[in-house]
Amino acid sequence: MREVVAVDWGTSSLRVARLGADGRAIEEREFARGILTVPPGGFPQAFDEACGDWMKSPDALAVICGMAGSKQGWREAPYAPCPAGFAEIANRLTWIEPNRIAIVPGVVCEIDGSPDGAPDVIRGEETKALGVLRMLRLNDARIVMPGTHCKWVRASDGCIESFATFMTGEFYAVLRQHSIFARTMPPEDGELDRGAFLRGVDHSIRRGNLLQSAFSARTLSLFDRITPEAAPSYLSGLLIGEELRTQDLMPNEPLVLAGADKLTQRYGIALEHLGVPFRSLGQEATWLGLHAIAQSGS
Amino acid sequence: MREVVAVDWGTSSLRVARLGADGRAIEEREFARGILTVPPGGFPQAFDEACGDWMKSPDALAVICGMAGSKQGWREAPYAPCPAGFAEIANRLTWIEPNRIAIVPGVVCEIDGSPDGAPDVIRGEETKALGVLRMLRLNDARIVMPGTHCKWVRASDGCIESFATFMTGEFYAVLRQHSIFARTMPPEDGELDRGAFLRGVDHSIRRGNLLQSAFSARTLSLFDRITPEAAPSYLSGLLIGEELRTQDLMPNEPLVLAGADKLTQRYGIALEHLGVPFRSLGQEATWLGLHAIAQSGS
Repeated sequence: MREVVAVDWGTSSLRVARLGADGRAIEEREFARGILTVPPGGFPQAFDEACGDWMKSPDALAVICGMAGSKQGWREAPYAPCPAGFAEIANRLTWIEPNRIAIVPGVVCEIDGSPDGAPDVIRGEETKALGVLRMLRLNDARIVMPGTHCKWVRASDGCIESFATFMTGEFYAVLRQHSIFARTMPPEDGELDRGAFLRGVDHSIRRGNLLQSAFSARTLSLFDRITPEAAPSYLSGLLIGEELRTQDLMPNEPLVLAGADKLTQRYGIALEHLGVPFRSLGQEATWLGLHAIAQSGS
Repeated sequence: MREVVAVDWGTSSLRVARLGADGRAIEEREFARGILTVPPGGFPQAFDEACGDWMKSPDALAVICGMAGSKQGWREAPYAPCPAGFAEIANRLTWIEPNRIAIVPGVVCEIDGSPDGAPDVIRGEETKALGVLRMLRLNDARIVMPGTHCKWVRASDGCIESFATFMTGEFYAVLRQHSIFARTMPPEDGELDRGAFLRGVDHSIRRGNLLQSAFSARTLSLFDRITPEAAPSYLSGLLIGEELRTQDLMPNEPLVLAGADKLTQRYGIALEHLGVPFRSLGQEATWLGLHAIAQSGS
């Protein structure tokens, strides 16, 4: 059994862990060294600073997932097509150092079934989604991973069958800071106002079109029907409600919310409000996914 | 018959016209003196500079529509409720100078039927919409007025019965400039790429959720399936497609597109592509609307 060094290298952060034989972290570290902060050619050094000590063991195997495998990352790791399970992903590792340091491919999904259509892609979330399956001993599930771009993965027979990306977090950020809403909202988000948030969720679902429902954030403020402090929560509810509106949630398909941050908690609040049963997992699924990929590929 | 001085005073521009007895402009002027450029207390002077010479006639009556009647404008002209026709609006003029200078009220529509719900509002477009009815001798119509916030008015029996606002233009601007799309698009929009635009319209309608369809603008660029030059047209198509997606267009209700700018032309291209019949009118409907309000109110 190799000693697995797990690396989750995203756009804005770098997380590393030394994993035990069960795929759980023995030791974890987090750095503000997302790929956007690493100069071209600087990846070996950033990697070394993060976990070079763990790599001294001759037996160590580093497996990296996330944006480090994108064009702007350490080395481009070409996308694997759907359906993709542990074996398909392990067979397509991009090796930085043979048998020592590997990058996990992202996954591409041709949602319109033709290369002329619009593809969808994930990088990093494929590993987390597969880790969720392993962790919960599931073969079929719907896995939701909130973030700047929220990913909804449908897993079937232990493979990623299809997925869809929703730009919910990014829409929130740009509307919050750069649209007319910025004029009447306080500069910083406070604590979540649960009532305002759920009012936004309901309004979005009722209205059925974000371009229209969004204007209510303006008029409620114009008519003093919402306080400036509650308005960011309302906008967040509008956006998450819009995302949830079109999900084809199947009654017998387990729904898993994977993530531990405040944003992910909001999805939980909205799902609970809508009466949709779900389970919650934290970030640890990524470690388990990387561990299983390391075992499939080595 | 009074000599009507028509004033369309919006957020970013000030347009004035001296109208003939038929409600058409005898003389028109346009200034970059939108209400955002006018300091508090500066409205009388800006008005005087724009059309003070026309107001010298003892018989002149100025009627002003648009954001000049908002809280940030010359004086707040409270909203009239729906349904609102010429008479209802003329009865609610806010007089700056008795019998000489009046501001037209905006219109409010309680879309959820209760003051606890989210209202919708227009200021300026009520006048244009009523002008469209007068111009085309219609009592019932659907009137679309594109802009930063596009307004869809439903007129019935010569009155504004209801309406809805879509933040399409503003979403385009903030996504274009501040989202991940900005990284791969050229700094300035070029000419409309009609094919890319309609591809965006179709994709949005097929997908049914802007938060998801928008990500295709990212992936098409990532996979070189769209050129950087065509990407802004595609994004514009996604947004206008999303707006058109949920309109309940009724077969026997005339659809009128009111506006003359490039944005309005795009709506025409999309409607034509979707096989929806419509008529097009320019800005002159606002003059006709102001003329009719002046006659109803004086």
